[in-house]
Amino acid sequence: MRGIVKRDPAPGAVWAEDLPVPEVGDRDILIRVKAAAICGTDLHIFDWTPWAHTRLKLPMVFGHEFAGEVVAKGAGVRRFEVGQRVAGETHIGCENCYQCLTGNMHVCESMKIIGVHVPGAFADYIAIPESCAWELGDDVTYEQGALLEPMGVAMHGIQVAPVGGKDVVLLGCGPIGLMAAGIAKAQGANQIISSDIVDAKLEIAKTMGATITVNSARENLEEVVMEATGGRGADVVIDYSGSGIAIAGGLKCLKLGGTMVLVGLPDKPVALDLVDGIIYREATLIGVTGRRMYDTWFECEKLLKSGKIDLAPVVGGKYDMKDYEKAFKAIKDGVPGKMLLIP
Amino acid sequence: MRGIVKRDPAPGAVWAEDLPVPEVGDRDILIRVKAAAICGTDLHIFDWTPWAHTRLKLPMVFGHEFAGEVVAKGAGVRRFEVGQRVAGETHIGCENCYQCLTGNMHVCESMKIIGVHVPGAFADYIAIPESCAWELGDDVTYEQGALLEPMGVAMHGIQVAPVGGKDVVLLGCGPIGLMAAGIAKAQGANQIISSDIVDAKLEIAKTMGATITVNSARENLEEVVMEATGGRGADVVIDYSGSGIAIAGGLKCLKLGGTMVLVGLPDKPVALDLVDGIIYREATLIGVTGRRMYDTWFECEKLLKSGKIDLAPVVGGKYDMKDYEKAFKAIKDGVPGKMLLIP
Amino acid sequence: MRGIVKRDPAPGAVWAEDLPVPEVGDRDILIRVKAAAICGTDLHIFDWTPWAHTRLKLPMVFGHEFAGEVVAKGAGVRRFEVGQRVAGETHIGCENCYQCLTGNMHVCESMKIIGVHVPGAFADYIAIPESCAWELGDDVTYEQGALLEPMGVAMHGIQVAPVGGKDVVLLGCGPIGLMAAGIAKAQGANQIISSDIVDAKLEIAKTMGATITVNSARENLEEVVMEATGGRGADVVIDYSGSGIAIAGGLKCLKLGGTMVLVGLPDKPVALDLVDGIIYREATLIGVTGRRMYDTWFECEKLLKSGKIDLAPVVGGKYDMKDYEKAFKAIKDGVPGKMLLIP
Amino acid sequence: MRGIVKRDPAPGAVWAEDLPVPEVGDRDILIRVKAAAICGTDLHIFDWTPWAHTRLKLPMVFGHEFAGEVVAKGAGVRRFEVGQRVAGETHIGCENCYQCLTGNMHVCESMKIIGVHVPGAFADYIAIPESCAWELGDDVTYEQGALLEPMGVAMHGIQVAPVGGKDVVLLGCGPIGLMAAGIAKAQGANQIISSDIVDAKLEIAKTMGATITVNSARENLEEVVMEATGGRGADVVIDYSGSGIAIAGGLKCLKLGGTMVLVGLPDKPVALDLVDGIIYREATLIGVTGRRMYDTWFECEKLLKSGKIDLAPVVGGKYDMKDYEKAFKAIKDGVPGKMLLIP
Repeated sequence: MRGIVKRDPAPGAVWAEDLPVPEVGDRDILIRVKAAAICGTDLHIFDWTPWAHTRLKLPMVFGHEFAGEVVAKGAGVRRFEVGQRVAGETHIGCENCYQCLTGNMHVCESMKIIGVHVPGAFADYIAIPESCAWELGDDVTYEQGALLEPMGVAMHGIQVAPVGGKDVVLLGCGPIGLMAAGIAKAQGANQIISSDIVDAKLEIAKTMGATITVNSARENLEEVVMEATGGRGADVVIDYSGSGIAIAGGLKCLKLGGTMVLVGLPDKPVALDLVDGIIYREATLIGVTGRRMYDTWFECEKLLKSGKIDLAPVVGGKYDMKDYEKAFKAIKDGVPGKMLLIP
Repeated sequence: MRGIVKRDPAPGAVWAEDLPVPEVGDRDILIRVKAAAICGTDLHIFDWTPWAHTRLKLPMVFGHEFAGEVVAKGAGVRRFEVGQRVAGETHIGCENCYQCLTGNMHVCESMKIIGVHVPGAFADYIAIPESCAWELGDDVTYEQGALLEPMGVAMHGIQVAPVGGKDVVLLGCGPIGLMAAGIAKAQGANQIISSDIVDAKLEIAKTMGATITVNSARENLEEVVMEATGGRGADVVIDYSGSGIAIAGGLKCLKLGGTMVLVGLPDKPVALDLVDGIIYREATLIGVTGRRMYDTWFECEKLLKSGKIDLAPVVGGKYDMKDYEKAFKAIKDGVPGKMLLIP
Repeated sequence: MRGIVKRDPAPGAVWAEDLPVPEVGDRDILIRVKAAAICGTDLHIFDWTPWAHTRLKLPMVFGHEFAGEVVAKGAGVRRFEVGQRVAGETHIGCENCYQCLTGNMHVCESMKIIGVHVPGAFADYIAIPESCAWELGDDVTYEQGALLEPMGVAMHGIQVAPVGGKDVVLLGCGPIGLMAAGIAKAQGANQIISSDIVDAKLEIAKTMGATITVNSARENLEEVVMEATGGRGADVVIDYSGSGIAIAGGLKCLKLGGTMVLVGLPDKPVALDLVDGIIYREATLIGVTGRRMYDTWFECEKLLKSGKIDLAPVVGGKYDMKDYEKAFKAIKDGVPGKMLLIP
Repeated sequence: MRGIVKRDPAPGAVWAEDLPVPEVGDRDILIRVKAAAICGTDLHIFDWTPWAHTRLKLPMVFGHEFAGEVVAKGAGVRRFEVGQRVAGETHIGCENCYQCLTGNMHVCESMKIIGVHVPGAFADYIAIPESCAWELGDDVTYEQGALLEPMGVAMHGIQVAPVGGKDVVLLGCGPIGLMAAGIAKAQGANQIISSDIVDAKLEIAKTMGATITVNSARENLEEVVMEATGGRGADVVIDYSGSGIAIAGGLKCLKLGGTMVLVGLPDKPVALDLVDGIIYREATLIGVTGRRMYDTWFECEKLLKSGKIDLAPVVGGKYDMKDYEKAFKAIKDGVPGKMLLIP
């Protein structure tokens, strides 16, 4: 089969026409990939940043946001049949640790990650444990299916700080932040204030549901939020940017007793004014990662099915998988939205 | 009357024998102070640190932890009678803002603080709004009454992260951290791991209820916690130290999905590893300040009444109020425990 | 002044042209009533049911949903000025009991109720403690103001079981149940299934936001809910009907782990299948009463201001106050919606 | 092998010396039973009540509280090895429904129950899916292991209404209610008021940790609770009795805003005063069943390991398994405590 392989510990990746189809373990399913999407993590791997070389052993097929058709299964598989349409959950839990045994497999103490620790989805085929597969509803396309994993990250942030009737600030308008604006709108947020430093991304945020957009390179987010909320501050701030500056500034937008959720991953420690930012403010700061397995997936599917969200504006481009270099370049050039790769 | 007055914008304070008894407003009560206690805030005022000179207008009688007898009241007072025994709540809410009108007077948007913005309790008499008074139960002495305010801070930290059956780390063994150990024991914490850098304080922590004590100047807290919890980490970490180093280190002691509470006030921004500390850990970080008015007071009184906690080991010294300089010196010398001033 | 007086312990009420304007206590405000609305409670009083004669001492001006202008105030009043526009909160807390002192004044242990224990709002003037007044925003009319109290009841039910993204069943389409449909829509409920036995009320429910309506006299609600939710059941069921049959049936519509909220008041004990209804279902059943003071009011005002809800369809009729008998008759005749009385 | 078989649809059971050792499926483990305990459910089966004949297909080995040694395993088993010591979780989840996939396997939509739908533990050997096994810590005996399942029921009730610092009423002093008293004590409840109608059971409740015991056949529980709580009522009431009278009465013991948990199973619908009991009281009523898999087990093991609870007083008798008829008779005779059967 064909696939995108990270072969050498240096920037770039190789388009390999000749890879063995993955072996299918006893509880694994083999999936013919129909659509995949590029995550920020994949850029780290492509560019071979410190994040990547502390985690990967090369060579490795990468990519972990995808959907496809089940074409084979191990003898021990119970939940899936050949022919079913599925999306993939990135996190492989051990099913035996304290977290896996208490309903928190997404923070497994011995987690493996698809496309990082085991071969990924930028390929014609991928084999995953059945515990990491999600059956797609009939009305969900493969391209939507490939978006469910990042949509789940957006949803997870909102699940821990419900937004119905609340004034919400969403930091960062990458694909996940954009989907979050759509989810917040569908779930009845009162005001949705999205911020970024790229106007084109803010335009999409408006389409998705933001009631106010702030280009924080030019405007003072705190002032905008305070004006919009009568000086009280936002009920909820969710960071999808991973920017330390955005996080520190976001805290100041929060009302007394408000909740801030951290989803984006800063690349270094962030200095926070804990006294005025958290303690005197009686703020709650919650970190979330991945998707609850599978609570978050049920929520995403229900929302898609309701017709209350349209993910189309979040798709920034669609490429034949062999043209992956163009897709990576588009992201680096600041083209907004999620890039899809079609094998 | 006599009282301790901060008169000049420089270190030190004045023992004034001759002060006017405070005027009693329409909804105020006048209290004959019977016992007061020294807070860390009072040291800031005494030493005239930046914290103090950005907040106080001099001259000012300071001190805000106290108990005494009601000796006069304004015409509009409804809840108190002359002769009643009361303790003082430091925070004066405006009773008209969003926070005051939603049950959160302790984070009033226009808060005034006794002993900072209005004359305090290191004096023979103090006048406070009746909204800031708490009637003492018959079996609570004035000295215990003067400890209720800081005990409430300890309790408040535990109220937002209930400890029954949990493994708990308490950072800092000042008087509040010591009372927290006693509360955690009374409320059924499984393991109580107290840390500090002064052995004498750790000794008292043991008396109060700590099951393990860690001198973090010599020992690695994270290692001790991980060993004690089978490598899983603590369910709850509460910082009563205000030390940035302790806070950053405390996060590492937390289990996946655990809760850290911030009570102590760091004197500058703290750099936190948000990725491994909060996001991948799915930690919740909660800031609390003061005491819930008056939920926290009810909890403190119930606990005192139950006989499940003895505050005596937390008292580090008792001084005639005119000897306040000795008491301040004792604190600076690292004498453990709370210093009482008796007018 | 004029007013509607319940004078005799028998059905009916008297239109009195000649009543003393209420005295204004030290912390009271006197309000010129501009609009009032009729509550189910008022029907109990009018008809002199057992509910009424165990609670009222006659004669009594009744009515408690209202808005008007402040025309005088006691010397101790701090929050209001003559000329301000206000709505009235029905519950008068003592401000001194455990509940009042812990942010739960709406369940005061010594509650007094306007129009039941003290003279009410079906009159030209009413005097209330300032603790029971809510300032109207400039863009809220007096008629809307008179609807805030029952809207708050609707909101309170939803506050304890947030509906964003959830499938919700609302039992009963009286004015409060209708407003709840509007709130649920504004706050992003996924499906809103409203039930009643009067088609005209269900029509209004649709206008307000119900996605499915069920006439439970003809249709099987449980079947409809199960079909709409893929057999899983509703996340949230809220009873605004007070019907024991509706409540017992509503439990069966709930998914495993779902939440049912009780707002309506059944007139006798209700037999519930606790095993299949609550225990095996791991259901949570929450009772709420009145409005959180003043959290619920802030939420209602924010929603009105957002333009996401239109209360007009909920108004069933508007009467000159002296024509109150026609208004009461309309309610008994099953005319849907809230009846307003204009002095 | 030997085992206790329910063979005929009539009261009684058969001691069979000659049963086939159960077959071991691909993901099953075979356990040599070392200790079993008798549940109320087992009495229903023994006596062939309506509860039993609507659920069981005969013949059936029953019993579901047990511990033993793994002696064989299927090829697909990953978590257990031959030689390990385990206890059994009664509930077999399908691992594929909404509940199983959202961390709530204990309320699986297609639940099977050991000793009801599949052969049980009153036998020399039992085969169970590995998903239903819990490894015993080294310091937990087999007899303690057989108590973990009912201890988990007690714990589960407390997990949804944490008791640290709270005044708690526990209705019913069967083995589960008795263990609940021990757990409540260990987790720092302030007052623990246990009720039953058998004095001998109340004596054990005192040993376990009850601070007050009430024989509700002779005493008025509500009065006792109100006196003990200064007229305010209990924070938490947990029913382990399954008595409709106890549940209706228990509601009246609850403070405004309190929480009642239902664990025991009433045998018919219960008429509740929802208005004064739940709505005006703003009570929360929570149903729980079984044990959270495996959160509850972790909590039980942690507590046992802490030494803060001693289950010995809860053991009412120990019988050779072939003498099961004596054990059943003792329960019917009102002998307090849990009866163990040793194969």
